[in-house]
Amino acid sequence: MVSAVPEKADRMSPAWWQREDLAYTDGRLLFAGRDLAQVARKTGTPVFAYSGHRIVDNIQRLLTALDDQGLNSRLFYAIKANRNYGVLRQIRQTRFCGIDACSPDEVQLALKHGFNPQEISYTGTSVANSDLDFLAGHPKILVNCDAISTIRRLADRCPNRSVGLRVNPQLGAGYHAGLSYHDSSKATKFGIYRDRFEEALTVAADANLTVERIHFHCGSGFLSSGLATFESILERVKWFLDRCPGVRVLNVGGGLGVPLKKGDLSLDLNRWAEGIGRLVKPRHLELHTEPGDYIVKDAGIMILEVNTVEEKGGAKFIGVNGGFGIQNLPLFYKTPLHPLPVIENPNAAPEIVSIAGHINEAIDLFAENIPLPPVCEGDLLAFLNAGGYGTSAASNHCMRGDYVELMLD
Amino acid sequence: MVSAVPEKADRMSPAWWQREDLAYTDGRLLFAGRDLAQVARKTGTPVFAYSGHRIVDNIQRLLTALDDQGLNSRLFYAIKANRNYGVLRQIRQTRFCGIDACSPDEVQLALKHGFNPQEISYTGTSVANSDLDFLAGHPKILVNCDAISTIRRLADRCPNRSVGLRVNPQLGAGYHAGLSYHDSSKATKFGIYRDRFEEALTVAADANLTVERIHFHCGSGFLSSGLATFESILERVKWFLDRCPGVRVLNVGGGLGVPLKKGDLSLDLNRWAEGIGRLVKPRHLELHTEPGDYIVKDAGIMILEVNTVEEKGGAKFIGVNGGFGIQNLPLFYKTPLHPLPVIENPNAAPEIVSIAGHINEAIDLFAENIPLPPVCEGDLLAFLNAGGYGTSAASNHCMRGDYVELMLD
Repeated sequence: MVSAVPEKADRMSPAWWQREDLAYTDGRLLFAGRDLAQVARKTGTPVFAYSGHRIVDNIQRLLTALDDQGLNSRLFYAIKANRNYGVLRQIRQTRFCGIDACSPDEVQLALKHGFNPQEISYTGTSVANSDLDFLAGHPKILVNCDAISTIRRLADRCPNRSVGLRVNPQLGAGYHAGLSYHDSSKATKFGIYRDRFEEALTVAADANLTVERIHFHCGSGFLSSGLATFESILERVKWFLDRCPGVRVLNVGGGLGVPLKKGDLSLDLNRWAEGIGRLVKPRHLELHTEPGDYIVKDAGIMILEVNTVEEKGGAKFIGVNGGFGIQNLPLFYKTPLHPLPVIENPNAAPEIVSIAGHINEAIDLFAENIPLPPVCEGDLLAFLNAGGYGTSAASNHCMRGDYVELMLD
Repeated sequence: MVSAVPEKADRMSPAWWQREDLAYTDGRLLFAGRDLAQVARKTGTPVFAYSGHRIVDNIQRLLTALDDQGLNSRLFYAIKANRNYGVLRQIRQTRFCGIDACSPDEVQLALKHGFNPQEISYTGTSVANSDLDFLAGHPKILVNCDAISTIRRLADRCPNRSVGLRVNPQLGAGYHAGLSYHDSSKATKFGIYRDRFEEALTVAADANLTVERIHFHCGSGFLSSGLATFESILERVKWFLDRCPGVRVLNVGGGLGVPLKKGDLSLDLNRWAEGIGRLVKPRHLELHTEPGDYIVKDAGIMILEVNTVEEKGGAKFIGVNGGFGIQNLPLFYKTPLHPLPVIENPNAAPEIVSIAGHINEAIDLFAENIPLPPVCEGDLLAFLNAGGYGTSAASNHCMRGDYVELMLD
């Protein structure tokens, strides 16, 4: 949740969130060429509206940055971010992008959408024997092992397989302290640490597993300000690569962020790719990356209807017909969803409000003490950057789980 | 999540969690007369095992405490805590308990389970017009209005209805700061505050709505240590009752807690009921209460299989085949789920471990740095106090949402 003082709208400069495919036109919020008020009146609310073009743009921007460095690279979309049918169909149609899965059901869904096993990577945690039994039946899937236990149990099932090892560089960058999971002060559940890496290689070698990939992940939602940390992580990864001469692929995970609030600067993808290039080019490594949220976050908008406007205890609450059950990022990760009225009210001074969902829990707030132009009961609010970790993590808590999803273009 | 140093098991005294229906017998954990290892091997895991007898006991204990005070009382089970078919059937069979709902779908579910409209209370927040349209079609449901806006819009639809007003006493007690939602320093979204209560009464009177109930809620999971605060809240509620002479019912909400860790003392229900009695008896008010978690929390155990035991970064992680998608209380509310091996290992010294779920997010930990007897891959762990806010708030995040639910008795 964000907190800020209101500011006079500067009508001369575009809003921080404005894009070619997202702007007010004649006072109406247009996204992907569609009038969101009309869309929502037709579908009803809550509705998640996605832009397939934006998804493709996000994929192409990443690939271009990697291509510009002359890297031999492959993208695997982390399907946990959003597994909507239209989203997956769009990603499949690009033919540029595979799928990263973390459970057998995610793999099955990817296969159903036409992705081939060799286009699917599997990076799981707390992996069960039943998961490994499933993976043994799909020998072309690129499995990255997160623990020595996983190496051992995978080897029991497919002793000559090529595998990746997920390593833990003990450093991270991202939106939120809870997601900086390579905190140097605290061990985290992910990956193999330095102190047991040689042991992991021995276990793999003894079982005739070929370690052909090193994988790491480094936080969530980092922007350009996080690139120095990202580069430090790459330095740390050298240590692992140096001990593993047979490796032919480096997987740098995901975690790339998009601007979420005024003042956020877009991630400098060229610098990101340059840093990767400096590490992988001298070693002639193929490059894998697993963005999820970066691909879909700013390609999805959640539209809710305001049902209650009321001052309570001296604060103004805007009640809406959705809750954390269908989009939990502001609550659980403190990542803001920027709200905009779908019909602009440019001359009204913003008020300071909190936006309250309809789940019967005090924590169900989309925003606290943010500036918002005055809204009335019956108005529609569009929440930007709602395309990832919304419906894929949705619950039916309080039986308030209904929503519609729509591909706009 | 709890943090503690290990301690030698004291074989002479019973464990803090032990009950007549929950104990090790010959080294095997029995719950409701059933061997949990056998149950879980039969159903598979994750499994939520419920005891119908414990549910009935919890209801009867509450009613007895209220009866002992000579109160005319009614219980409404807050269905959001758990809407499993067997749980609802059990509650319906008692005939002692109605349902508190917070959404039209919850009402529909209660009706399907045979509860009559007059046995259903509705206490919603950010209530939409479509919710009110639905409630207008069920005139016998006891609607508690959470906002002046709701009063106004309900009156438009059913001008002569009897209603309750949810008030905000600006004080709370409970497990976790995030749930103490009547924080005096911060306005919360719930209820009508003092400063607008007269206005609320006027709006209701002008529309010929009869205010027959005052409703408040006061936090979540309070034990005896929270009763002083509860009594202060009752004092504050007098102010509202004094201004509303036509009221014939006080609804004290829910929020009653159960012991979750060693040293927690059970809620003194007699003192709780006495406090209520002092307020409602002189006023000849009927008493309503809406426990949810209190009814089901300690009547449900979640059983998971250990799939990974591994030291990482100097810490011992126990990986299990469930995650926060199916039970989010430790993560989101910091309420511990006490883990016990289903097969006892009484002579082994506990180790300090963290229990990691299989969702690919760093935050997916059921416990951090807790003492646990040594376990091996393939062992089963029973997590106590998992009966509330598990499956009712479950998601399929990472497509790891599968579970089984089973009524044991």
